[in-house]
Amino acid sequence: MKFAVLARCLLLFLAATAIARAEDGYRLWLRYEPVADEALRAAYTQALGRVSFDLPEGMAWSPTLITAVSELQTGLSGLLGRKVVIDTVAESLAQPVPGGDDAYSIRLEQGSVSRVVIAANRDVGAIYGAFALLRQLQTARPVAELDGLAGAPRIKRRLLNHWDNLTGTVERGQAGHSLWKWFELPEVVDPRYVDYARACASVGLNGTVLNNVNANATILTEPYLRKVAALANVFRSYGVRVYLTARFSAPKEIGGLPTADPLDPAVAAWWKDKVDEIYRHVPDFGGFLVKANSEGQPGPQDYGRTHAAGANLLAGALAPHGGVVIWRAFVYSHEAPDDRHKQAYSEFTPLDGSFRPNVFVQVKNGAIDFMPREPFHPLFGAMPRTPLAPELQIAQEYLGGALQLAFLAPMWKETLDSDTFCAGAGSTVARVVDGSVDQHADSCIAGVANTGDVRNWTGHPLAAANWYAFGRLAWDHSLSSETIADEWTRMTFGNDATVVTPVSAMLLASRETVVNYSMPLGLHHIMAEGHHYGPGPWVAKSGRPDWTSVYYHRADERGVGFDRTAAGSNAVAQYRPEVAQLFGDPARCPEKYLLWFHHVPWDRPLASGRTLWDELALRYQSGVEGVRGWRQAWAAVAGRIDHERHAHVEQLLRRQEKDAAFWRDGCLLYFQTFAKRPLPAGVEPATQPLDYFVNFRLQYVPGDPAMR
Amino acid sequence: MKFAVLARCLLLFLAATAIARAEDGYRLWLRYEPVADEALRAAYTQALGRVSFDLPEGMAWSPTLITAVSELQTGLSGLLGRKVVIDTVAESLAQPVPGGDDAYSIRLEQGSVSRVVIAANRDVGAIYGAFALLRQLQTARPVAELDGLAGAPRIKRRLLNHWDNLTGTVERGQAGHSLWKWFELPEVVDPRYVDYARACASVGLNGTVLNNVNANATILTEPYLRKVAALANVFRSYGVRVYLTARFSAPKEIGGLPTADPLDPAVAAWWKDKVDEIYRHVPDFGGFLVKANSEGQPGPQDYGRTHAAGANLLAGALAPHGGVVIWRAFVYSHEAPDDRHKQAYSEFTPLDGSFRPNVFVQVKNGAIDFMPREPFHPLFGAMPRTPLAPELQIAQEYLGGALQLAFLAPMWKETLDSDTFCAGAGSTVARVVDGSVDQHADSCIAGVANTGDVRNWTGHPLAAANWYAFGRLAWDHSLSSETIADEWTRMTFGNDATVVTPVSAMLLASRETVVNYSMPLGLHHIMAEGHHYGPGPWVAKSGRPDWTSVYYHRADERGVGFDRTAAGSNAVAQYRPEVAQLFGDPARCPEKYLLWFHHVPWDRPLASGRTLWDELALRYQSGVEGVRGWRQAWAAVAGRIDHERHAHVEQLLRRQEKDAAFWRDGCLLYFQTFAKRPLPAGVEPATQPLDYFVNFRLQYVPGDPAMR
Repeated sequence: MKFAVLARCLLLFLAATAIARAEDGYRLWLRYEPVADEALRAAYTQALGRVSFDLPEGMAWSPTLITAVSELQTGLSGLLGRKVVIDTVAESLAQPVPGGDDAYSIRLEQGSVSRVVIAANRDVGAIYGAFALLRQLQTARPVAELDGLAGAPRIKRRLLNHWDNLTGTVERGQAGHSLWKWFELPEVVDPRYVDYARACASVGLNGTVLNNVNANATILTEPYLRKVAALANVFRSYGVRVYLTARFSAPKEIGGLPTADPLDPAVAAWWKDKVDEIYRHVPDFGGFLVKANSEGQPGPQDYGRTHAAGANLLAGALAPHGGVVIWRAFVYSHEAPDDRHKQAYSEFTPLDGSFRPNVFVQVKNGAIDFMPREPFHPLFGAMPRTPLAPELQIAQEYLGGALQLAFLAPMWKETLDSDTFCAGAGSTVARVVDGSVDQHADSCIAGVANTGDVRNWTGHPLAAANWYAFGRLAWDHSLSSETIADEWTRMTFGNDATVVTPVSAMLLASRETVVNYSMPLGLHHIMAEGHHYGPGPWVAKSGRPDWTSVYYHRADERGVGFDRTAAGSNAVAQYRPEVAQLFGDPARCPEKYLLWFHHVPWDRPLASGRTLWDELALRYQSGVEGVRGWRQAWAAVAGRIDHERHAHVEQLLRRQEKDAAFWRDGCLLYFQTFAKRPLPAGVEPATQPLDYFVNFRLQYVPGDPAMR
Repeated sequence: MKFAVLARCLLLFLAATAIARAEDGYRLWLRYEPVADEALRAAYTQALGRVSFDLPEGMAWSPTLITAVSELQTGLSGLLGRKVVIDTVAESLAQPVPGGDDAYSIRLEQGSVSRVVIAANRDVGAIYGAFALLRQLQTARPVAELDGLAGAPRIKRRLLNHWDNLTGTVERGQAGHSLWKWFELPEVVDPRYVDYARACASVGLNGTVLNNVNANATILTEPYLRKVAALANVFRSYGVRVYLTARFSAPKEIGGLPTADPLDPAVAAWWKDKVDEIYRHVPDFGGFLVKANSEGQPGPQDYGRTHAAGANLLAGALAPHGGVVIWRAFVYSHEAPDDRHKQAYSEFTPLDGSFRPNVFVQVKNGAIDFMPREPFHPLFGAMPRTPLAPELQIAQEYLGGALQLAFLAPMWKETLDSDTFCAGAGSTVARVVDGSVDQHADSCIAGVANTGDVRNWTGHPLAAANWYAFGRLAWDHSLSSETIADEWTRMTFGNDATVVTPVSAMLLASRETVVNYSMPLGLHHIMAEGHHYGPGPWVAKSGRPDWTSVYYHRADERGVGFDRTAAGSNAVAQYRPEVAQLFGDPARCPEKYLLWFHHVPWDRPLASGRTLWDELALRYQSGVEGVRGWRQAWAAVAGRIDHERHAHVEQLLRRQEKDAAFWRDGCLLYFQTFAKRPLPAGVEPATQPLDYFVNFRLQYVPGDPAMR
């Protein structure tokens, strides 16, 4: 074989392999590649002759400020290819920055040697200011924008919730095992913990609940508290505080008490001692997250006590230390025959006003469970005397896990921007949550993390955008999805417009596409049992009726959908009249929520002029076609981004198209048994009979609790 | 705060963090850093003006050769900092290279443009030759050594056995989850699979059993065979063939048959069809590994048939395709009251000669179970008509898992170099295994892998040395532990003698150190139940007597140890007389095996002149002191290797010292209750009472089958 010929085949082969790959995704959006635009780089270099931090006296020596300096040094070295002098201002101006503890403001001082000054009220503001400055350079913003750049979070506690088990599995996690290596801790402290805290801080997150809400009391034992402390020690200088889930029966399980009754003085004393012990290990411990009397978890109702009694028990122990309780409202009773949609509201609204001040009630975005689309939860706006903390899900439990593209900012915005009308028009969920509607001093938002120990953190390379987006929205819920997608894409793939434009467009379209191929027009909870990855509209038997699919879609020969109007479960009555009238009227109800609130005849004409059946079928088809379109768009950016991430996403999109078609075919064949109508033109017929889909079994799906 | 002061504290901080870390261990021993010695690099550059492959006609276009060229290109680019022209010789000399399919030989042709020629009989030999050439440069060997460098493996099948479950857990694995992402496959093909195959090929491994010997028939279903095929497609060009474990009851579990009786014609037909199906997916499939009628696994004895009947059933199906069966001899009966040490021998030796030619019997190095030290298994040399495949364990199930340093080459060499005397003096285990004693044409060796999906593959950075060492010994069992340790250290940390010398010394001492602090003087199987990580000499109740510790150490007021002489279980009689006489005589028995074969009085004087009790206590103490010494040695290389790996190992060694002291204290306190003698001078007393150690519970230890 001649060399020339060999060389030609090598070209292809070498492109596919490399011993040291540059882009394994580990760096997330903090890549700090050199600024590609020469003129812009020169302008940045000129402006950033020096960077000074301006903090009140006494803050200057903290590990947090040192961390801010270090991050800035690392970032600017990469972006500008040179070391930048970083110092603190000689004489602090000590002018307060508007916006509180976490706020920062940046000014640009032009001169013979220009400098940028980052001012903050506390050292942690220096961290956020440093990352904001770096983001400007990473996204190629004009130099002039640096002057006057300022930020302050609208919500005080911005948390990730990790559903990580002590065994290392992650409930609903598909990005590998847990990041927390409990067996090695506290002696072995993985450097990855630093990079986790860095990533969180870079998007404004300031707290992390380390373990699963389906809790294990072992985390509260002394050996584990030492491990937790080792993590907290790493996170502290990034302003990230540690929280834990508390298993309500811990006093019995690890405390040796005969009861966990919240009104038992011995139980209260045990929790007080335990909390004191925790604060000895972790002086800045954030507090407890609790799932109680929900899906089999123990709770105060085991003793005939209310959720408020349970939450107040823990809040009392935490209050002297400044800790909080985050008590989940995700409850639905075994016995209650009522629409599951209504149960949290029914159970919690009577308790409004009876919680201690350091209790948050954590409410999922919608009333069922992280579906691809839900109308906002009726609890928002219905508990004015209680701070409510939204629980969003970054892990895509019902949106394809770590294998499917679904950028979630539009979904979260849909909830946050919903108007509850609780204090008149403009009382959005976001304003309820940030405390501005009801004048709450403290505020909190949580996202169930999509992280794991795979090299790129989130499995799907594009799923990192959801971690990023959650942090950015937690900081400022007024940001648009478009802005966030643009930022993340630039930071992740560079500023080449021929990449940024199509990739951002894919991200922005993706959630609606997933809705279309899985649960369009307000359909919900029709996924397969257990793993939740694929379709299962035929699921009719389960541990309880409201774990089936037929409970939710109620398809019959007349039509499909859950009647939640006054003629049905009347869940709409839990909303304010303005909302209830909108959702409750099939003629006015937004089509995206139609089958959520109404049982609609197959032949009812929709806005498109098409019948419900035809529209439904075409939505499924459009979902599949959406993924197909991304595959083309993605193919077109080949060569403009690194091969490794490109190939990975390419493979994932191929899988997603296959899975989308599976959803379409399974659901349409199933609903067709009721609708008894042909597929409209343009909808590809299934290549397998319904039985194939019904009998198909995915095994060993990561994140399935059965694999715990 | 002034910049100078800030800068000083930054120095420390920046050393501890970096956004893009160069040395996360992912590259293993294939780092290809530039040759540090300028003169040597110049000499290499001169000699490697060009590299040519010399292969028989027809081999030149194969993906395997292209892979070899690619690896060489990548490696030389890194080592020499320039591209080297690589081609094939214009006219193949087609002179056979001694040593068979995998062999290579290298010659150096000096001239105006010097070149190196790598000759091989088959394309896979080009891979091994390429990695051998690179190893020379990585370890800074003189240029002249290139000429005449040649290699040929002594054993044909060199396998890793992965005890990986389809759930993603790894039995006895502590380096994260399984490398195989079954849920993503076959659509998503992790580039890491390429790097896995590359690492295997670089040390001469040519086969991999993907799944756990505690088997799951699902791997043999069509969806999983498609996933297996995707992996095999990646591994193929590196010469790595895929094998699977076969669950003996698969015909019932996935085949719908009422029986798995090996003599049932329908069962035989099912296996034939299944094997044909496998070969349609994986044309170069290697064969089956089977654990049958052992620790609850199904097998032929469920139907009153022998292991030979079971193995021959599968071998018959595989034979037409060239596949093999590897049938494990790790069996011990629930009912058999005999010394567990004796049972595999008793069960298998009568079957010698009754296996089909394509069956290997896979035998652990010792008769119990991968203890830190075992005398060689008496089956070696006792089944001349059956090729025996040693099963070694790279994962350190009983040697501290992924948290403790234990370089295993000396342990494996101890077994391989043991003389069985089966065909006279010099009939070492290695020569039995490589086929030279009994003239077997095929040969096989397997190591239970220590890999997982953590970034550095093996958890402990130094544990990669065991993967490396297993491959090198599988290729050439005559290599010394010293040579292997030296090679690996140079390839992993560079050629600085002030690093290589102390790190190699640590490696070489480590296994004996672990033996000393855990099971010295022939003690065995006295570990904690379940996870096997810590001490448990007090374990007296378990699922069966031979899962307890007291069964093995038999401590009483007279002494300690298992009498396996004629006066006891007479296990020594399973060895040839030369060996039996040595092991059976307490005066001649090597002290390292003393308590394995003898119940020895506490006051018996040993070679040191000390009593058994004093010697035992001092051995435990010396184990702890050994680890302490490494900590000092490791601290001394700080700054000479990258911070990240240094800090990681430093933390691990601190943990190991703590764990070693725990072993020492727990075991000595326990044995002291029988010996009733004081600790000799120099042995540190325990700081906790015996109860503390007995009641100590480690929870959620990775790799514990209870966490499956």
